[in-house]
Amino acid sequence: MSDGLPMQVPAQDLPPRVRVYEVGPRDGLQNEKTAVPTEVKAEFIRRLAGAGLTTVEATAFVHPKWVPQLADAEELYPRLADLRGVALPVLVPNERGLERAIALGARRIAVFGSATETFSRRNLNRTIAESLAMFEPVIARAKAAGIHVRGYLSMCFGDPWEGPVPIHQAVRVARQLRELGCDELSLGDTIGVATPGHVLSLLAELNEEGVPTSVLGVHFHDTYGQALANTYAALEHGVTTVDASAGGLGGCPYAKSATGNLATEDLVWMLDGLGIDTGVDLARLTAASVWLAERLGRPSPSRTVRALSHKE
Amino acid sequence: MSDGLPMQVPAQDLPPRVRVYEVGPRDGLQNEKTAVPTEVKAEFIRRLAGAGLTTVEATAFVHPKWVPQLADAEELYPRLADLRGVALPVLVPNERGLERAIALGARRIAVFGSATETFSRRNLNRTIAESLAMFEPVIARAKAAGIHVRGYLSMCFGDPWEGPVPIHQAVRVARQLRELGCDELSLGDTIGVATPGHVLSLLAELNEEGVPTSVLGVHFHDTYGQALANTYAALEHGVTTVDASAGGLGGCPYAKSATGNLATEDLVWMLDGLGIDTGVDLARLTAASVWLAERLGRPSPSRTVRALSHKE
Repeated sequence: MSDGLPMQVPAQDLPPRVRVYEVGPRDGLQNEKTAVPTEVKAEFIRRLAGAGLTTVEATAFVHPKWVPQLADAEELYPRLADLRGVALPVLVPNERGLERAIALGARRIAVFGSATETFSRRNLNRTIAESLAMFEPVIARAKAAGIHVRGYLSMCFGDPWEGPVPIHQAVRVARQLRELGCDELSLGDTIGVATPGHVLSLLAELNEEGVPTSVLGVHFHDTYGQALANTYAALEHGVTTVDASAGGLGGCPYAKSATGNLATEDLVWMLDGLGIDTGVDLARLTAASVWLAERLGRPSPSRTVRALSHKE
Repeated sequence: MSDGLPMQVPAQDLPPRVRVYEVGPRDGLQNEKTAVPTEVKAEFIRRLAGAGLTTVEATAFVHPKWVPQLADAEELYPRLADLRGVALPVLVPNERGLERAIALGARRIAVFGSATETFSRRNLNRTIAESLAMFEPVIARAKAAGIHVRGYLSMCFGDPWEGPVPIHQAVRVARQLRELGCDELSLGDTIGVATPGHVLSLLAELNEEGVPTSVLGVHFHDTYGQALANTYAALEHGVTTVDASAGGLGGCPYAKSATGNLATEDLVWMLDGLGIDTGVDLARLTAASVWLAERLGRPSPSRTVRALSHKE
């Protein structure tokens, strides 16, 4: 604490180690209003890797019309080729995106599905069934090439248009993504409405329907301040992959009220305090977020970043 | 959610009902830089009571030199005399404060102690032992008059000058406050550094040392974003009193980096989602915080207030 770290006091029955799946460079930066130079993105990812993060979602191979902020994927990705010890998954929406990712040597991809029809139509311009049909050849080709596939399942808990999402509905799409071959799933609370009981019920239902916790990650947003409490509940259930965004960057450009992702620093503060190994150096991570915030010209929304950088 | 409420999904083994102990009018407003008119304070408390809060710490009978923002306690308190069904505890530091509180008919008081010597000296200008000696006649006289006494124990987890606080040290002062006659204790993480394992260990140690959970409340700050995760852990331990500040008002004027209290709205969102009864109407509570924020001339830091008021 005086050294910028929490006092370490473990709790019972939590995982000894958690993989922090960093989404800031993709999920965070895709929402920036002004263009972020490619060299800034590359340096940010280097600093995140230098802080000990082992998985950093680097960019997306989507049509530049949809996400202009990530239009430089072809320039960015090769600049990271020398980074060792860090997985750099990329988001791909379709076969064209997969081809671009494969051409650059990506070894991990992610597809982005929705638990609700309305968000699927608004975000992907497709029904859920049509989106799964679009993912099917992407996942099959990726698997054939030995590429690891993550499936994002957004709007698992609530949808800004549809309201609360029935648990069985999220479970159904999760199972379908697994059946298509996704190696792991990330359960997204895209608008941040979930509370711990809802999280635990969804996890339990997924387990009952044959989706083991070991393939599940959680992806919470802090719209209502619930992200870390939900994460703690998920850890108690045995989840060992937690998505977070350095400095609390990002949100979702298509979802009303989807403010920031869970900040990686707030997450790591809790995991450090719980004695859960992440491999992440909180001071270096905070420094990376402060460095980026200076380039973006506004302070980080992460409370931990603000508290630690205020002290320096 | 579409109606501004989370989907209700209970978790196992949590208390069916939680008392939200609202500290905004005292702990929050004491830190305002510009004077808040007495009638605004009174109206704020009325709106909080109207939202269903059953305990609202109204003000403090301290020397106006120390906390000038609460110098109007004598004018404020009588204005609340007709409020029914809501307890209005007041903070008193010493016998003089108790006399003032009794003269106005207060039925609940709180004393404010510290788990660390440094904060005790800086905040109370006394050692811990001297502060307890000061509280002793206050508590004894209050109890003799049938007045309910809460003991705040600040800096239970960390101290900005001393660093991490050993659990046995917080337990020792907690026991002493109980021995002096405090009916309940509020365990304060004044600088917001605690994580859930630390909270659970302190609660367990207190139980072992004869302090039952039924007399314990928790008081978390969101400096590092941990407040709600810590609250959830405390609920799992059986805690049924949670301090929070409407709109996330406040902090501690004497503690470095002590940013906002846990926002009552963020807490109520979680408790509503968990199906835990609080009696609080989230929409009316949010409206009260928005009303006050307009008078203070700046937005509420509560994420739930921002999300809900953005939608309106």
